[in-house]
Amino acid sequence: MDLIEDIKQKAKNFFLNSKGSHDWEHTMRVYNLCIHIGKKENAGMEVLKLAAILHDIGRAQQDDCNGGICHAEKGAEIAKELLTKVGYKKSEKVIHCIKTHRFRKNNIPVSIEAKILFDADKLDSIGAVGIGRAFLFAGEIGAKLHNKYADINKTEEYSKDDTAYREYIVKLRKIKDRMLTKEGKRLAKERHKFMDDFFERLNKEVDGDI
Amino acid sequence: MDLIEDIKQKAKNFFLNSKGSHDWEHTMRVYNLCIHIGKKENAGMEVLKLAAILHDIGRAQQDDCNGGICHAEKGAEIAKELLTKVGYKKSEKVIHCIKTHRFRKNNIPVSIEAKILFDADKLDSIGAVGIGRAFLFAGEIGAKLHNKYADINKTEEYSKDDTAYREYIVKLRKIKDRMLTKEGKRLAKERHKFMDDFFERLNKEVDGDI
Repeated sequence: MDLIEDIKQKAKNFFLNSKGSHDWEHTMRVYNLCIHIGKKENAGMEVLKLAAILHDIGRAQQDDCNGGICHAEKGAEIAKELLTKVGYKKSEKVIHCIKTHRFRKNNIPVSIEAKILFDADKLDSIGAVGIGRAFLFAGEIGAKLHNKYADINKTEEYSKDDTAYREYIVKLRKIKDRMLTKEGKRLAKERHKFMDDFFERLNKEVDGDI
Repeated sequence: MDLIEDIKQKAKNFFLNSKGSHDWEHTMRVYNLCIHIGKKENAGMEVLKLAAILHDIGRAQQDDCNGGICHAEKGAEIAKELLTKVGYKKSEKVIHCIKTHRFRKNNIPVSIEAKILFDADKLDSIGAVGIGRAFLFAGEIGAKLHNKYADINKTEEYSKDDTAYREYIVKLRKIKDRMLTKEGKRLAKERHKFMDDFFERLNKEVDGDI
């Protein structure tokens, strides 16, 4: 078995109890996006593929970045162990990507591979996939389908009013401006437009006009 | 308070513990669609509005139509009581709509109001709203986001593979052919197209190509 397949099999085991909005399929979508963007941006594909496969393996242990466990930092630790065991030489490059994929103040993506992983992970929150994930997550926490009149500033997270629309207004529609690579920007622009049209239509359908 | 508002307040109480994919907001969307279609089809608006408001009040007690409790029949019973209490004269017309809104063999919508309610209820399963509801429901039962390669014939209902895409392939894409009114057909055609485009795009995004 080659290195990529070997690490893929090992990483998959960290997702056995994960929920639908952040499961192994999310990792696989990010992996596919990394390959697509990586080719356009002339990235080191081996490092990039390994980083994509391993970027969320710390998620099961995540609590929070403030004081608790950050899944990016925990994931980087686990990845280091895994890659050391198989004797991988460029593990530091992979670790850098995993550690910085949330782009927190003390963890800024510097290499092109780290920038691509950040873009791919964020891209999976928008477009048709992003719409699906936002509603799936709302279902997981027992939220409503939609409430276009809800005062979003007063809506509590994980409450019945923590809808996909709130997620879109507060977070998802800002993602396109955070992209770090040229191809990431291009994909984000298209996915943003699609998501924007979706919620515009949703708001009209709710009134029974279309 | 006028009759419609009075019944609305009473009906709302039947949805206090309902889940997001079949809650009071679903009733309100069906109500809005009924008003829109009713105007085009010259329906009796009072009967139609009352039927829309009351059509799902038996849902909390639904088990199944085969042997158990059917929410359309149970809802018709509860509605009859409510409307009798307020001395409403045309209650039989409302009851007919509620009883037949699932269009089962022994309960076929005959009046124009009943046909409109059937169309409105089904329309709320497709288009942008339908996409949202399908993913929300998948989240509620702990299903995956998406698996375009799943063998749908082997997928069990309420399993991890009971995804929004399965619902679309098995049920939602057939709804446009079941509409009973002219305006219902027109709306369904547009909503179907939108939903179709959504899943086509989703399948491409998952591969990381767009």
